[in-house]
Amino acid sequence: MRKCYFDHVATNPLDSRVLDEMMPYFKEEFGNPLSMYELGSKAKEAIDNARVQVASLIGSKASEIVFTASGAEANNFALRGIALARQNEGKHVIVSKMEHHSILNSARFLEKMGFVVTYLPVDKHGVVDPDTVKRAIIKDTTLISVTHASSEVGTIEPIKEIAAIAREKKIIFHTDAVATAGNIPINIKDLGVDLLSMAAHQFYGPKGAGALYVREGLRIVPLIYGGIQENGRRAGTENVPAIAGMGKAAEFAVNEMNSRIEHGRRLRDKLLKIKSSAENVHLTGHPENRLPGHASFCVEFIEGEAMLLLLSAKGVYAASGSACSSKALKASPVLLSMGIPSGLAQGSIVFTLGKDNTDDDIEYLLAEFPQVIKRLREISPYGKGWGIEGEGGQCIVQK
Amino acid sequence: MRKCYFDHVATNPLDSRVLDEMMPYFKEEFGNPLSMYELGSKAKEAIDNARVQVASLIGSKASEIVFTASGAEANNFALRGIALARQNEGKHVIVSKMEHHSILNSARFLEKMGFVVTYLPVDKHGVVDPDTVKRAIIKDTTLISVTHASSEVGTIEPIKEIAAIAREKKIIFHTDAVATAGNIPINIKDLGVDLLSMAAHQFYGPKGAGALYVREGLRIVPLIYGGIQENGRRAGTENVPAIAGMGKAAEFAVNEMNSRIEHGRRLRDKLLKIKSSAENVHLTGHPENRLPGHASFCVEFIEGEAMLLLLSAKGVYAASGSACSSKALKASPVLLSMGIPSGLAQGSIVFTLGKDNTDDDIEYLLAEFPQVIKRLREISPYGKGWGIEGEGGQCIVQK
Repeated sequence: MRKCYFDHVATNPLDSRVLDEMMPYFKEEFGNPLSMYELGSKAKEAIDNARVQVASLIGSKASEIVFTASGAEANNFALRGIALARQNEGKHVIVSKMEHHSILNSARFLEKMGFVVTYLPVDKHGVVDPDTVKRAIIKDTTLISVTHASSEVGTIEPIKEIAAIAREKKIIFHTDAVATAGNIPINIKDLGVDLLSMAAHQFYGPKGAGALYVREGLRIVPLIYGGIQENGRRAGTENVPAIAGMGKAAEFAVNEMNSRIEHGRRLRDKLLKIKSSAENVHLTGHPENRLPGHASFCVEFIEGEAMLLLLSAKGVYAASGSACSSKALKASPVLLSMGIPSGLAQGSIVFTLGKDNTDDDIEYLLAEFPQVIKRLREISPYGKGWGIEGEGGQCIVQK
Repeated sequence: MRKCYFDHVATNPLDSRVLDEMMPYFKEEFGNPLSMYELGSKAKEAIDNARVQVASLIGSKASEIVFTASGAEANNFALRGIALARQNEGKHVIVSKMEHHSILNSARFLEKMGFVVTYLPVDKHGVVDPDTVKRAIIKDTTLISVTHASSEVGTIEPIKEIAAIAREKKIIFHTDAVATAGNIPINIKDLGVDLLSMAAHQFYGPKGAGALYVREGLRIVPLIYGGIQENGRRAGTENVPAIAGMGKAAEFAVNEMNSRIEHGRRLRDKLLKIKSSAENVHLTGHPENRLPGHASFCVEFIEGEAMLLLLSAKGVYAASGSACSSKALKASPVLLSMGIPSGLAQGSIVFTLGKDNTDDDIEYLLAEFPQVIKRLREISPYGKGWGIEGEGGQCIVQK
């Protein structure tokens, strides 16, 4: 049976060339980078080198990169580290409703600590209107965090415009670029952001490595205290192989970005035919301004989970909502915030393509998908309601 | 040139059998454990399996293990997570002066948040007297944290006695077992602890994997918020290969512990001859009740860093103080807290032996060490002071 991995937003396979780069640090070069001897020096060199490579990915200085163990850690570090560092100037933070749980739940933690958080609404495509950011700013606002792109619906946010608003008001601006870094071009000077989160496994690097870009001179309270690693900003013995792997993956991402984007877009556009392969299948997120390999839908009268299981039985691996919430079995807050009704949001399915997907993968999905939908609708408790000409088409998603 | 790695407390080499166990998760089994399909299930199985293996190492239930990315993260999580969860009951925390920076600096963070912290003194061997714990407890005390063993001086603390005192007063007790877990037998029921930190790379597992044992039913505030990983207690896409490796390393540690301990002790006892190979070399830490492969000294009239560099040139890799502070170039707070004068504390050198060290390694060190000392003392600014019969021998370390 064909295996089609269409869940690159959950995690990417590790590039075998990246694994090769990691191997020496699992073997002879196992030293602690803080050690004073040659063995430790090699490990330290690997980290220094990776720092340059990751900085190149976003156009920052190497010294502005702080390695973490995940994108989630980078997001927690950014949101709480800046809010705490600036709490004497104000205790108001702004985030959008499109944020990943690592931002939203960090914001809730800040609320428990006496901060006030504004959750920005989005439009039907999941876009944060810069004007709503402007209106949400008060005298006490010290930090704004808006995701660069939603992993659930693929929408790319107008970060440059929002960052400019923040900068004008001397408010620190963070963007969660976990879904974008390594996948679309990023230049922190052009974007104008102060902090930016990344995760290596989102661009064919290893799990266990993330990074936070922290603009030079910006004070941030550590999330993990301890030794003097990462200039005292993030403690813990460095995961040298993973960091070396993140660096190499960043280098490949820079070199191969254009061809990966073109490949992802081409296959994605082909995949979009799914919409016409069954009735009442609605694209979610922005129709044009979205991640290259990202195609997300809501299918009426069907549960996302049921689709995943039947597709999985056919060797097709996709997602319903974000990986972190898929087992929480709730309608995705991101979809709800876009005005998609709860029932329809349950029918969410997300296909995210990668550099190793092929035209044949897409053909296979296009052939199998209508059968899955047909079978599920036959047994759906909502079965009777589906397929009434025009009704589903009026769904809020595509209005 | 012979290479002798005597810095196992900084990090261990990765066991090649453990690396073999990790490899499938770098390759075909790369899925996200939260995914609904078969690929993710294999990754989830690996984590479930590792959880059972790590639990076996300390006699806990698998459900009581929370994976982290490092021992430092586990320590931060424990100290801050419990202090915050219990802050309505009191804001007083007790730690010892023997703690790792990840505990001490977390305690300082709590102080900034309005907590009061008592730092317990230790005796000349670095032992925390349970009576001082008893006297430090006040009505507001909610948490006590004392390290299981010091990585710097090897002393094993009377955790069982201290935990019993905490339990009697209904105070939560955490121990940092990063230096002990996987190296000496641990049973959490026998020790009577509520929380216990571990790091995989301290027992031939990979860097990037740690764990916190959290007693069933204990409420703890997360350090890293986000998705539902680790039952909502620690977010971030799981580092599956590292976690699988930690599990396998735990399994080997259980099976091979006795022989490793015997080997470590035997070589360490042989290494102790170093004391008589040069004058004014003093053992630090407890003479008997210490980690099996651990030998730590203060050498009079010499800087630890200089010893490390000369030894390194001879292929001998050791440490001076903890790995996390060795590049901070300050006299170790742990040695100072034991009453060792600042000047002598600068002459700290720590040899930590592992399962792959041999008798020949020790012979080599015993042959080279006196020459290193001789050479350094010849160029030492304190040179004139050394070697006066009896004087150094009166040093506080061995009184």
